[in-house]
Amino acid sequence: MTDQDFQSRYGPWAVVAGASTGLGAAFADEAAQRGLNVMLLARRRDVMEQTAQRIRDAHGVEVRPVVLDMAAADAAAQFVDAVSGIDVGLFIYNAALEPQGLFIDESTDELLGNITVNCVTPTLLTHHVASMMARRGRGGVVLVSSMGALQGIKVFAAYGAAKSYELILAEGLWDELRDHGVDACAYVVGSTATPTFLERQKSMKTPDEQTLKSVFGDVGDGVSAPRPPQQVAAALFPQLGTGPRLFSDPADEQAAAFMATLPRRDTVEMMGKISSMFWE
Amino acid sequence: MTDQDFQSRYGPWAVVAGASTGLGAAFADEAAQRGLNVMLLARRRDVMEQTAQRIRDAHGVEVRPVVLDMAAADAAAQFVDAVSGIDVGLFIYNAALEPQGLFIDESTDELLGNITVNCVTPTLLTHHVASMMARRGRGGVVLVSSMGALQGIKVFAAYGAAKSYELILAEGLWDELRDHGVDACAYVVGSTATPTFLERQKSMKTPDEQTLKSVFGDVGDGVSAPRPPQQVAAALFPQLGTGPRLFSDPADEQAAAFMATLPRRDTVEMMGKISSMFWE
Repeated sequence: MTDQDFQSRYGPWAVVAGASTGLGAAFADEAAQRGLNVMLLARRRDVMEQTAQRIRDAHGVEVRPVVLDMAAADAAAQFVDAVSGIDVGLFIYNAALEPQGLFIDESTDELLGNITVNCVTPTLLTHHVASMMARRGRGGVVLVSSMGALQGIKVFAAYGAAKSYELILAEGLWDELRDHGVDACAYVVGSTATPTFLERQKSMKTPDEQTLKSVFGDVGDGVSAPRPPQQVAAALFPQLGTGPRLFSDPADEQAAAFMATLPRRDTVEMMGKISSMFWE
Repeated sequence: MTDQDFQSRYGPWAVVAGASTGLGAAFADEAAQRGLNVMLLARRRDVMEQTAQRIRDAHGVEVRPVVLDMAAADAAAQFVDAVSGIDVGLFIYNAALEPQGLFIDESTDELLGNITVNCVTPTLLTHHVASMMARRGRGGVVLVSSMGALQGIKVFAAYGAAKSYELILAEGLWDELRDHGVDACAYVVGSTATPTFLERQKSMKTPDEQTLKSVFGDVGDGVSAPRPPQQVAAALFPQLGTGPRLFSDPADEQAAAFMATLPRRDTVEMMGKISSMFWE
């Protein structure tokens, strides 16, 4: 698709939620590179301003950073306000909260925060922009999900559940919105070397090679290696409009296809071994 | 499993959320038949009292109906109160809200109600009972999910997403809680002839046989025929403790396994055709 085609399909504005750094900033960068103006939504003004300036300098588009906490009770109202003056052609919900630990050890606040940021806010924000896009007859909606959404996953049970909500919602929207010329999809990403991930990685265990081999033997080694955010973000754009569930990497898609053929018990157990190995 | 084995594994009390009629009442009946006392939780006192009396008369166990609205903001606090005096060995979350219609046509209240009843409340209630069961080293937790949770589904996009949250949460809990002697699982049910379903069916379209054949040809006809609640409830009990994702019917399990091998686009499209055919 030429940049001009891209702009008439998904322009003039892209809005990226969760865009101060890492994957969100990379999505914004990729949209700007194709000539879209970009609105960034995130909590931290300073970091977001830097990202905004970097994107302006690199691509010469208009970039508006807007402070918005996806965990806020009035996040949807703030969002409606923020986008009221712009024509949103592409919406990417990349914000996420990733509680970690055994479910019974998590606090009620963590469990509710997980649902707010990963279910409530993407639902309400998507509802607003998707309705506008459907009326206009074009646009794109991307809900960023995770390999952890494809089956229950130990240590991340609540997180996986919430990412599955986004995954299945986006798939349903793909079917409903294509009648209106709008491309919706879930974007399933594996581990990505975002600043958040790298920070968490400090508390991650490092299993020996034999343990790794014993678990990853069957599914390839793609699951464990974190990929650069720019690579993960870039892989989305050529796939936009091609289906309800898009993967950021063919290795992940293959692993998912393989695991879908296993008895469910084996799939959940395998993912559980992986997360226990690194995180428990 | 003998009734005595069942009681020492999942007794002395079963708690069923969403238990006034239909599938929930049938789960309660099945638990009582195996000698468990039963606490029923639902909104409507009158209907629930009748169900309670019927179960008492049939099985001679103690049955306590407690009025509890799963959509209430303080549902979890009310629940903690309700179960404080009893030893819960089996918890079945069967309550559900099933908003219907295109996502962009739904109201914010419907979308939030869907998340509250199908995500927030089961999370908090499960968190409370699972923690108690894990400390005690035995028990069972069942989150009732749906065939609509296995892929995005037109007309039920938000509902499918929320049921997927329950599905994937329960799968993760299966892996986490088995270390504590607790059997958690998702119970995937297809269309069931509950009073709620039969009421909704009045507004359902009736496609001709050829249209039905054109869609169901590949996956068998099990998807469309609503099954009696007692049959769906009874099929759970022999399967308890056998895996993270249990199906109420082998035909559904086969259909799900087949659809998991299709390109995602085809799976979502097929389910969308089915729901459009009956409901749109």
